[in-house]
Amino acid sequence: MNAYRSHNCGQLTANDAGQAVRLSGWVHRVRDHGGVLFIDLRDHYGITQVIADSDSPAFGLLERLRAETVIRIDGKVKLRDASLINPKLPTGEIEVYATGAEVLGPADELPLPVFGDQDYPEETRLAYRFLDLRRESLHGNIMLRSRVIKWLRDAMWNAGFTEFQTPIITASSPEGARDFLVPSRLHPGKFYALPQAPQQFKQLIMVAGFDRYFQIAPCFRDEDPRADRSPTDFYQLDIEMSFVEQKDVFAAVQPVIQGLFEEFGGGRRVDADWPLIPYVESLRKYGTDKPDLRNPIEMVDVSDHFRGSGFGIFAKLLEQEGTEVRAIPAPGGGSRKFADRMNAFAQAQGLPGMGYIFWRKAEDGSTEAAGPVAKALGPEPTEAIRAALNLTEGDAVFFLGGKPSDFEAVAGRARTEIGRELGLIDENQFKFAWIVDFPMYEKTDDGRIDFSHNPFSMPQGGMEALNGDPLKVHAYQYDLACNGYELISGGIRNHTPEIMFKAFELAGYPAAEVEKRFGGMVKAFRYGAPPHGGCAAGIDRIVMLLADESNIREVIMFPMNQRAEDLMMGAPSEPTNEQLRDLRLRPLPKDA
Amino acid sequence: MNAYRSHNCGQLTANDAGQAVRLSGWVHRVRDHGGVLFIDLRDHYGITQVIADSDSPAFGLLERLRAETVIRIDGKVKLRDASLINPKLPTGEIEVYATGAEVLGPADELPLPVFGDQDYPEETRLAYRFLDLRRESLHGNIMLRSRVIKWLRDAMWNAGFTEFQTPIITASSPEGARDFLVPSRLHPGKFYALPQAPQQFKQLIMVAGFDRYFQIAPCFRDEDPRADRSPTDFYQLDIEMSFVEQKDVFAAVQPVIQGLFEEFGGGRRVDADWPLIPYVESLRKYGTDKPDLRNPIEMVDVSDHFRGSGFGIFAKLLEQEGTEVRAIPAPGGGSRKFADRMNAFAQAQGLPGMGYIFWRKAEDGSTEAAGPVAKALGPEPTEAIRAALNLTEGDAVFFLGGKPSDFEAVAGRARTEIGRELGLIDENQFKFAWIVDFPMYEKTDDGRIDFSHNPFSMPQGGMEALNGDPLKVHAYQYDLACNGYELISGGIRNHTPEIMFKAFELAGYPAAEVEKRFGGMVKAFRYGAPPHGGCAAGIDRIVMLLADESNIREVIMFPMNQRAEDLMMGAPSEPTNEQLRDLRLRPLPKDA
Repeated sequence: MNAYRSHNCGQLTANDAGQAVRLSGWVHRVRDHGGVLFIDLRDHYGITQVIADSDSPAFGLLERLRAETVIRIDGKVKLRDASLINPKLPTGEIEVYATGAEVLGPADELPLPVFGDQDYPEETRLAYRFLDLRRESLHGNIMLRSRVIKWLRDAMWNAGFTEFQTPIITASSPEGARDFLVPSRLHPGKFYALPQAPQQFKQLIMVAGFDRYFQIAPCFRDEDPRADRSPTDFYQLDIEMSFVEQKDVFAAVQPVIQGLFEEFGGGRRVDADWPLIPYVESLRKYGTDKPDLRNPIEMVDVSDHFRGSGFGIFAKLLEQEGTEVRAIPAPGGGSRKFADRMNAFAQAQGLPGMGYIFWRKAEDGSTEAAGPVAKALGPEPTEAIRAALNLTEGDAVFFLGGKPSDFEAVAGRARTEIGRELGLIDENQFKFAWIVDFPMYEKTDDGRIDFSHNPFSMPQGGMEALNGDPLKVHAYQYDLACNGYELISGGIRNHTPEIMFKAFELAGYPAAEVEKRFGGMVKAFRYGAPPHGGCAAGIDRIVMLLADESNIREVIMFPMNQRAEDLMMGAPSEPTNEQLRDLRLRPLPKDA
Repeated sequence: MNAYRSHNCGQLTANDAGQAVRLSGWVHRVRDHGGVLFIDLRDHYGITQVIADSDSPAFGLLERLRAETVIRIDGKVKLRDASLINPKLPTGEIEVYATGAEVLGPADELPLPVFGDQDYPEETRLAYRFLDLRRESLHGNIMLRSRVIKWLRDAMWNAGFTEFQTPIITASSPEGARDFLVPSRLHPGKFYALPQAPQQFKQLIMVAGFDRYFQIAPCFRDEDPRADRSPTDFYQLDIEMSFVEQKDVFAAVQPVIQGLFEEFGGGRRVDADWPLIPYVESLRKYGTDKPDLRNPIEMVDVSDHFRGSGFGIFAKLLEQEGTEVRAIPAPGGGSRKFADRMNAFAQAQGLPGMGYIFWRKAEDGSTEAAGPVAKALGPEPTEAIRAALNLTEGDAVFFLGGKPSDFEAVAGRARTEIGRELGLIDENQFKFAWIVDFPMYEKTDDGRIDFSHNPFSMPQGGMEALNGDPLKVHAYQYDLACNGYELISGGIRNHTPEIMFKAFELAGYPAAEVEKRFGGMVKAFRYGAPPHGGCAAGIDRIVMLLADESNIREVIMFPMNQRAEDLMMGAPSEPTNEQLRDLRLRPLPKDA
């Protein structure tokens, strides 16, 4: 028999009544009811109530216990009185009368209680992570994370994928973020890099003939602090497939992700209809390439209604090239108060404001349009807009004008705000969409052409398309949006060296530079590369969505703080002189 | 339908005869039989024979193909003539008559062929790893590795363990090897370290209340080059359990490892009897703490037979303290030729040689002992040794004398050599043993007391034992040996701060040093730590055993070479000036 327990703390039921048992765990809570001690003994599996009265040989020891002491209890299982049964606890029908006890791990006064829901500053929680992790909600999040990852692995194997590990100490990977470097001792002056993603390796795995790869892959980026991401690393479900087109990737991924959300979504509805939305359409309708489709509001280009109209600001604006007026319908938002609040929201976001029209019941019982835009426009165009947007009495519409790139992001946030304020968003569901046809290139602020996303994606139309206007080229590149977040990003890869060199040339990278930076992969493509593509899903983000948490540190066992420090382990720290000598490095003085 | 294939290259059988199919894959081999082309088309799943004659519209394209070109074939499944059926191939009953073909990925002239078994220099293989990985045996090893890891994960989950990820960018871990450091950009002058093992984290997970942890964990050590290990990183199955004694860990681990070897051992016998062998006994009997128990030879201390005997060298030797004469029985080794060969082996290993006796048939038909030792010893002691070791005519025994620490390692190798030479080792099996009761401390060359293995193991006898002679203290520390390799190492941990401080004090570490180096863990132990223990199994080593490979690079997808370089990706490499500026580091000049 195990020296510490015959059962765990979540195991005993009425069926065990009368049994002699041994339990070990943490003292969750002690109550003294007039000489009878009630101890909630907690372990990973649950809580069992232990009792001891002054007749118990264990009483003296148990009486003095501090919370979170680890103890072993010998005792006997007793049925609780019917009135004391706790139906919320799996062990709620019984209690264990202690006949012996031993302290296995004493506890000092706690800097952070485990029992109770009191909130504590995050720095304390991180410095005493081992205590914080004992709390029910964080414990639950971490177990959820583990189960999610296991579920994903099983689903991927069942779908015919094989998991391979790619190197962690490797060469710089060209994902566009900052690498973490690792100085080489054997090659002084040279550095390895931690992979920002296994992008090149997974493509090499396809070139090596392995067909369907996945990996729960750690990815490393030296990021500047931001609340909702880890400053050092994150995990992704990394996927790559050979001999596939975009739709084959979608067909492989949807059952996995949909199944995952069905399994762990806590009963929230999981939409099985995953529309394909072209990137430009997504920006137009939702102001973002990661739309929250739980929000039914779709924005509409209403420029034609304003062109040459009586609403001078927009009419004038539309004379400039590349401008547009976009409408955000707000069903149920038809009051001046609401309209003013949304206008203020837009101003707070840095725009001059949003024009609006709302429709109310006139004194004569008919529907009338109100608001400054309606006045300036006049009745006919106003009515045309109402009809086009299918709005009615009690509804409103907001307008933003200018270059879409200048207002689109705010328009997207306004859409969210309006949907939320008007209760249009059914929070109790997950809605997905594939955003497709991303532009291959974009114009940078200084007028150059650069890749707008992943340089390794295949341009739609191949070499022929690259010989035309680069800004019109779409990439076989896609994102999966869910409830306003980007869960997955991927693409069909450019596996043809000539098309790759041409694609890079258009973005200003000469062939020599491509050879230098991605030489391993480019070389491989010259010896028989299959068409291939894939994607990567952000696991931390997925677990956050499932756990309904907005702070990434709530779903990571041992996270860094926002300054990229591990307060518990004391990282980073000063190296020893010997270490620096081995690496032949000298840190520059602080004020140099 | 998928644009590239209706079936994979391992799928078509006689049942598919007559079907129009589409296949994609690599051109494994092309044979031209008088105007009829036979193409072995290969993908991850298998090989299918494609044929084309001059009537085929695909003939012109197929005729010009270089090996390893990736092509798509449209064609019709045909039954092969009975005489041409290849029973070794799952697709061997059919062939596909090509009606169309397209090149998807052209191939240059190969630096390394994929077809055939020809050996190539390892540097070429590593530089063109993507080609080498297409070869059947390496492809198979990598798939084996993936399946082994999946199997282990499933087995651990089924046994009630949960996988948690521990940090990869973290603080220096005190495993005794050299850390890889990662300079911090946000905290100039400070460094992170990559974990040598998740030792502290897994113990913290226990303190955090998670009970049964495992992880397929990457571990990082900046090692000097050695043929049979990776110079940068390796993977271990890392395990930790709360509320356990040593035997509980063994009971949890054996079914997993035994089951794994039964599943993937390729039919080799897997011994279910795992003896517990104390460390000192293992050294005495086998000369090593990782004995190969397939070899039945057990060494015996025969000092008593030599003390004061006529064999002067040993008699004299035994007058010195701490010396011993050890016998290696060699059943079936009873010839002067064999004895001389083994003697030469010992000399090649740096010893003066091994004394020996062998027993042969005398001219009168009786058994006689031969060899210089027998002569010097005289008949009675010689006969006593023969009887004690249960040897007979045709057998031999070898002797080594001195301080065991001086000869034990060679004795162990001689035992292996003798067992192998005499055919005593049944290669077709896996034999396991737990080596237990490791000494907690050892005397260093300069006479200090230091930890002999893991400083975090609980000393047997706890505080009381530490108050006695440190060199007599055993640790709750164990290894699993299999066929001469150490597969697993582990221990029951020291979870009591006072015992830990005392243990470190004995090894010369003051409390302040312990607090500084292991502060995170020591702090945690003050707030309710459960008794816990675990182990770590070397995954690369296990896969090597299962795959019957002796080079670790044969079981890793993208290994470093022995100089810790990735020749394919070009790592390590010179950093950019901008990177160094960001990190505020200056490499010392080469000749400084």
